Amino acid sequence: MSEPKHTLHYFPQSGNSYKVGLALNCAGIPWNAEKVDYFGGETRTDQWRSSVNEMGEVPVLEVDGRKLTQSGSILLHLAQETGKFGGATTAEAEEILRWILFDNHKFTSYLATYRWMKTFMQPAPHEEVLKFFKARVDGALAIAGKHLETNSFVVGNQVTIADFSMAGYLFYPAEEFGFNVRETHPAIGRWLNRLQSLPGWKAPYELFV
Amino acid sequence: MSEPKHTLHYFPQSGNSYKVGLALNCAGIPWNAEKVDYFGGETRTDQWRSSVNEMGEVPVLEVDGRKLTQSGSILLHLAQETGKFGGATTAEAEEILRWILFDNHKFTSYLATYRWMKTFMQPAPHEEVLKFFKARVDGALAIAGKHLETNSFVVGNQVTIADFSMAGYLFYPAEEFGFNVRETHPAIGRWLNRLQSLPGWKAPYELFV
Repeated sequence: MSEPKHTLHYFPQSGNSYKVGLALNCAGIPWNAEKVDYFGGETRTDQWRSSVNEMGEVPVLEVDGRKLTQSGSILLHLAQETGKFGGATTAEAEEILRWILFDNHKFTSYLATYRWMKTFMQPAPHEEVLKFFKARVDGALAIAGKHLETNSFVVGNQVTIADFSMAGYLFYPAEEFGFNVRETHPAIGRWLNRLQSLPGWKAPYELFV
Repeated sequence: MSEPKHTLHYFPQSGNSYKVGLALNCAGIPWNAEKVDYFGGETRTDQWRSSVNEMGEVPVLEVDGRKLTQSGSILLHLAQETGKFGGATTAEAEEILRWILFDNHKFTSYLATYRWMKTFMQPAPHEEVLKFFKARVDGALAIAGKHLETNSFVVGNQVTIADFSMAGYLFYPAEEFGFNVRETHPAIGRWLNRLQSLPGWKAPYELFV
């Protein structure tokens, strides 16, 4: 039986795509990259919504022709498929899921939207909207920072997909956020350094071109 | 062996607590309710964060003394524990996970925050913040509404935890949102009616007092 074939539909600025690309790379899985014309509106077309992803989002990972979406869901699939980064025990697997949900609900969701508004949104959002999101970002970073002061990784003693999920956006350049998380939250900085030393790790704009 | 003992830490306005309470009720599981003084700041105390939930959130479900958090994670745990509402096949289980992540990322997250701002936040947020969230709410409702035009339930042909997750907030009174989703999105209204006919279903402020 041949290895499953993986094709990642991505665009370089998408941190959710980067999470998946990073997991594939660090797991040592060969994969194809298919760039989506996000800024040209490709994901908002009826064709994309009806034939690729009704949720209208990138990334999409095709595995042997099957289309998986939602980065958290894709990461859980990859952990199962490869036996890597899924935690050492059932309790760890449950913790991984809990942190991935927290990430989607409160961490990446605010962080990614805030970065998007600071750097890519046209027209720029109202200052009060930025302020609102920044407060939520600060709250989420405080929770993660506190956790990482006493834990080397998000769950257990080794890298898991929960790390890829939560760290993904933070590897983008500080300028895109308007603040440097390594300075504001040193424990998060040390955790990012640990992840950067993984074989297969690449920065977002090196992994995606 | 006795049945596992379930205690739900909740507060009545928390739709994420309601999702879990509803799943417990519809699964026919006996459970205890432990009201949290959210408005009095209980979840923001060091005691709560260090001994109950470092993420600072409600709900928390204690199962035999073990503390589970994140409604999505709790719902997945309950599906596994009870063999109910977890989908009929592995493919359905993966779809459930994908929609629960979508819910946490884009659906409940915006809907719940918008309702919170409209009804509970003091001081009220800036009008531009409300406008920003309302646009995100409309986008998320459009995706769910379209899906439910051709599907009776979120995944497959029967109720799953993905329905509890996505519908939870929508059972709160329309006045708390400032719009009536049953009027703006009739397909969502019909889906809510289907869920309301489940044995064990109760409205939020009847389930929680």
